[in-house]
Amino acid sequence: MTALPVPGVSVSAVEAGIRYADRSDLVALIFDEGTTAAAVFTRNAFCAAPVIVAREHLLECGLMPRLLLINTGNANAGTGDPGMLVARRCCEEAAVALGLNVNEVLPFSTGVIGEDLPADRIINALPKLFAGRSPDLWEQAARGIMTTDTRPKLGSRQFVVDGTAYVLTGIAKGAGMLRPDMATMLSFLATDAAIAPELLDTLLRRAVETSFHRITVDGDTSTNDAALLAATGVSGKQLCDDPDSELAQVFAVALESLCLELAQGLVRDGEGASKFVEIQVSGGGDEAECLDVAFTIAHSPLVKTALFAGDPNWGRVLAAIGRAGLADLDVTGVRIFINDLIIAENGARAINYVEADVAELMRGEDLRLGIELGRGDALVSVWTSDFSYDYVRINAEYRS
Amino acid sequence: MTALPVPGVSVSAVEAGIRYADRSDLVALIFDEGTTAAAVFTRNAFCAAPVIVAREHLLECGLMPRLLLINTGNANAGTGDPGMLVARRCCEEAAVALGLNVNEVLPFSTGVIGEDLPADRIINALPKLFAGRSPDLWEQAARGIMTTDTRPKLGSRQFVVDGTAYVLTGIAKGAGMLRPDMATMLSFLATDAAIAPELLDTLLRRAVETSFHRITVDGDTSTNDAALLAATGVSGKQLCDDPDSELAQVFAVALESLCLELAQGLVRDGEGASKFVEIQVSGGGDEAECLDVAFTIAHSPLVKTALFAGDPNWGRVLAAIGRAGLADLDVTGVRIFINDLIIAENGARAINYVEADVAELMRGEDLRLGIELGRGDALVSVWTSDFSYDYVRINAEYRS
Repeated sequence: MTALPVPGVSVSAVEAGIRYADRSDLVALIFDEGTTAAAVFTRNAFCAAPVIVAREHLLECGLMPRLLLINTGNANAGTGDPGMLVARRCCEEAAVALGLNVNEVLPFSTGVIGEDLPADRIINALPKLFAGRSPDLWEQAARGIMTTDTRPKLGSRQFVVDGTAYVLTGIAKGAGMLRPDMATMLSFLATDAAIAPELLDTLLRRAVETSFHRITVDGDTSTNDAALLAATGVSGKQLCDDPDSELAQVFAVALESLCLELAQGLVRDGEGASKFVEIQVSGGGDEAECLDVAFTIAHSPLVKTALFAGDPNWGRVLAAIGRAGLADLDVTGVRIFINDLIIAENGARAINYVEADVAELMRGEDLRLGIELGRGDALVSVWTSDFSYDYVRINAEYRS
Repeated sequence: MTALPVPGVSVSAVEAGIRYADRSDLVALIFDEGTTAAAVFTRNAFCAAPVIVAREHLLECGLMPRLLLINTGNANAGTGDPGMLVARRCCEEAAVALGLNVNEVLPFSTGVIGEDLPADRIINALPKLFAGRSPDLWEQAARGIMTTDTRPKLGSRQFVVDGTAYVLTGIAKGAGMLRPDMATMLSFLATDAAIAPELLDTLLRRAVETSFHRITVDGDTSTNDAALLAATGVSGKQLCDDPDSELAQVFAVALESLCLELAQGLVRDGEGASKFVEIQVSGGGDEAECLDVAFTIAHSPLVKTALFAGDPNWGRVLAAIGRAGLADLDVTGVRIFINDLIIAENGARAINYVEADVAELMRGEDLRLGIELGRGDALVSVWTSDFSYDYVRINAEYRS
């Protein structure tokens, strides 16, 4: 996994000792002047102090932030008013060090909830953080934002429009509370194209909808989620604000593809995950009901433990579909597939079902569970992992 | 645990060898003529063949069934049209043996989904089943309907109205897919009072609402759930159809109390359960929002693994409250308690929080997690268990 540098972005990662020694835990993404940005944040009512401050600063700076200051080891969530003061203070110190306005600094935190964020450790590390900046440290940044992740997630896309070559690079973290509303999920993306904030916002929201909002590990949603997309404009000839322009369209494809790769990388590295499962629901009346079915299955502990066991337990899948709340579901029209093999139809096991064949298929690490609802043309996929002993171990041991 | 006989009801349980040898797996509850009944069934769209047949027969016999024929080891669910034929055939054979109309026989099944129910084994066991009937075999019946349950659940209440003594006895099973809509949950209750079907239905629904619908192990819902309440009228002086009568009111209290005891017994014996946790949500604007908060917490794998670990991880509780979908939730007004000790308020850890004290409290097997929303007077409790290694083991090994 490599990530290409993005003209107009410099990156740094250092050890600030926020919670653990000997690991990188403080990251900076520094943008050239003129960079535009869009961001989406957690919908959890208990959002963390840095989320509140980042959202506020992003608006105040006219969607043109200059610094993302990201720490792991401590979420600065459930910390009340003192947590707000700490988040603001870190932004102020960083702004002074780089000669920025405080509202050009956006803070992001991930890690344990309910502990005081040690602001002094962050502030003491700022000189080294900013001194070490370089365009080439994206992988170090991807490592510096990890919590229970076992590997960094990063990637790039290149695209050419009108003879100009552009790059899009992104990193992401999060292995636990993932799902729609993107729990404990952080992702930072940057391009050197010049894109107007409003268009950037539209493109980011659309890409998130079909990537980070379609993955789930355990259905929980964190207090700190955020995805931010910056466009430095360094390689842009003129600001693009037309969604129908070639640049917007080519960029949208690159963005959706990179977001999906990063999102799937999060599921593959999900806590205790031993399987990577696409749940593809087709034949729905609309996308909303396909998503209801897909997430009901993806969140069913009984389905997830069966996946862990490699057990082709279509009865549990059928029970999950049956409680997904679809009005007037004709259960005899529903068909269930593992990869391309039909396993259930007409409310029962498929005629040609051979348990040994299906069990063999399920030994694979990558599976597609297909549900054909037989009531329309809508189609969606979501991606999830199984429920293993390790999921329990990690979450019983780790104080997140 | 003991259960009192109910005048007008005889009970039997035998080994029919449906899935396993050397265990009781076929149960009959036989009611005297004139018995009225009410029942609630799963809301899962994929309901099992016996659910469809029982619902149909109950209406056809004018809410006056004579025989409940219950098997464990096989749910006869996900079995399509052949499963319907098998369910009907068992009812027919049982009706002939007892000289009943076929629609006076209600079938119930629990166990593995998607396997053909071996009708012959059931039919061959009917003579012995009916020959062994006795008023005193409620405990054997409670054992005969178990699946992954580790112990039978049964209980009785006695009450006196107008100088007449009455009894109410019930059994229940289900340790896995429990929750609202009552997955893999079966409960059968009978009284010797004389109660009109319509009133019986009202009383049963009300009692279920505050008992079986307020428990959850893993949020899954089965294809086979049912709760049935029969009133033989043997000890009744006249048919009671007045909800304001003393009998109706006294009986309602007994019924709610017994249903709650049985429901809590199911959670205590939940798959892999090491804790029994009451989640009490108070200060809500209405009951519906209290239930949303309570079930969001009760279904959160992160909260459940923290309970298993005995970790006072109020951050995960707070995150669950925050995603429960309450409009305009003032997060600073929310308070979280373990038993009577406050652990979080003002969006942060409580001032006097001492982790060692809370961790000590959480070593108990019975806990109450209290949430005070601070926005109204509504109050509800739901009961749940934790998520343990054993939950994964049981559900990865057991083909339900």
